[in-house]
Amino acid sequence: MRNFSEETITGAVLARLVDAPSPRARAVSEALIRHLHAFVREVRPTQAEWADGIAFLTCAGQMCSDTRQEFILLSDTLGVSMLVDAINHPLPDGATETTVLGPFYVEGPPELALGEDIAGGKPGEKLLVEGTVRGPDGTPIAGAWIDTWHSDTEGFYDVQLGEGLPALNMRARFRTDAEGRFWFRSVVPSCYPVPHDGPVGDMLKAQGRHPYRPAHVHFMIGAPGCETLVTHVFLDGDPYLDSDVVFGVKDSLVRALSRQEPGTTPGGNTADQACALLRYDFVLAPGRA
Amino acid sequence: MRNFSEETITGAVLARLVDAPSPRARAVSEALIRHLHAFVREVRPTQAEWADGIAFLTCAGQMCSDTRQEFILLSDTLGVSMLVDAINHPLPDGATETTVLGPFYVEGPPELALGEDIAGGKPGEKLLVEGTVRGPDGTPIAGAWIDTWHSDTEGFYDVQLGEGLPALNMRARFRTDAEGRFWFRSVVPSCYPVPHDGPVGDMLKAQGRHPYRPAHVHFMIGAPGCETLVTHVFLDGDPYLDSDVVFGVKDSLVRALSRQEPGTTPGGNTADQACALLRYDFVLAPGRA
Repeated sequence: MRNFSEETITGAVLARLVDAPSPRARAVSEALIRHLHAFVREVRPTQAEWADGIAFLTCAGQMCSDTRQEFILLSDTLGVSMLVDAINHPLPDGATETTVLGPFYVEGPPELALGEDIAGGKPGEKLLVEGTVRGPDGTPIAGAWIDTWHSDTEGFYDVQLGEGLPALNMRARFRTDAEGRFWFRSVVPSCYPVPHDGPVGDMLKAQGRHPYRPAHVHFMIGAPGCETLVTHVFLDGDPYLDSDVVFGVKDSLVRALSRQEPGTTPGGNTADQACALLRYDFVLAPGRA
Repeated sequence: MRNFSEETITGAVLARLVDAPSPRARAVSEALIRHLHAFVREVRPTQAEWADGIAFLTCAGQMCSDTRQEFILLSDTLGVSMLVDAINHPLPDGATETTVLGPFYVEGPPELALGEDIAGGKPGEKLLVEGTVRGPDGTPIAGAWIDTWHSDTEGFYDVQLGEGLPALNMRARFRTDAEGRFWFRSVVPSCYPVPHDGPVGDMLKAQGRHPYRPAHVHFMIGAPGCETLVTHVFLDGDPYLDSDVVFGVKDSLVRALSRQEPGTTPGGNTADQACALLRYDFVLAPGRA
């Protein structure tokens, strides 16, 4: 009960968990203690290094706000978010693959009518996004909700921009039509660095890594009886597709932009002017029991 | 470079470290990624559990302030601080053992003359603390600095107390006299719960653990050519000596309070009134090259 050494401390901490009321809380705590202690035993930090680690976590927490989530960024850049995603999504054949949520999702985005422009007046190359949402058996789903969000042409999300601009843009919620189709207008997003003016940026620098993500459009799609899908569609040709700082790229999620002349699109929509066209047909996985 | 699975993601993240400018930063990063991924693979968190973990860390960071350090508390209560301490202090025979710094140390405490009362008017049983500071060879050290701090009789440190009270009390810096002796007056501290109104408190509850530390007086002691000593002296008889929430108790650091009648103490000091007497003779380890 006293006099713990490097050899005995881990067992002593584990022994304190005998009265944990929840078996899951106990199992998670045990694993955390074993792996955290193993990390410390391997690294053998000096007291000053350990204090630096405490300061890193403190600074990360203090950077978090309604519009900045440094711990999600840390999880993303250490590959942990994609690992958690992989563990949770052993997808059945044919369902659209998943990728990270990222730190810029906003719950309850403005709900717009199909076809509306979400760019909020931001400059850039005009973009038409269209596609379908289908269920596990391939049947189009009417009334599925689609949250979408993306960066502007300079790589910033609305929530990263200062006062004086519209509170929310380049994001919206749509609902598929009777044939499971969706379409909306915006501007072509750019690749961008994740926020790197905080401790995660310092970490990336110390690790000799760039902070860039390839250009993409986020989607979160849900329908009754289906697993909610969290994914991106990446733009083919981006220079960072093979070095995404958060390890999120999957080949099945990459699509080339095509050139749409004024007229009718392959999805049956109307383009008033020439624009870039991004098409993706999503397939949802069955909901879990 | 894409399409990472549960099996391949860890190697992919490790491969990104090839350009890390510092070998130490690379080694620490590699170990962090391996152990963190191993923890996640073992625990297999749901997305909701992982979000809870992010929220836990965020909340811990946001509780930190000039007078509250939730991440030190987390490190302490998970036994990590004592593990780091053990790794860094393979003490030579005879040197005083070390224990955790804790979250309540304040750099640059008020420097007082030997014998002064640091209680700042707090109520409680009068206490006289006395002892000596010696070097590795047993020679008394003149002019060693001694920072001491402790809780009040209700278990609170000065920095935990609200406005209207003296900014700093129950803490001070002293210097040993020509014979290596120190002495000061205060009140007998109490056992106390670590701050448990935040995420660490929630964790302890989920782990079925009490938040108490046995009564103790903190010391940080330094002298030229010696390793700075960070330790406590624990009060014998405390009910929490065998279940300290931060695993800090060592038998060699436990001392019984004795009853001192008015007159001369064993250390050659003068007690004006009856009080409790705490004696400890510290031995510093040699400084590291």
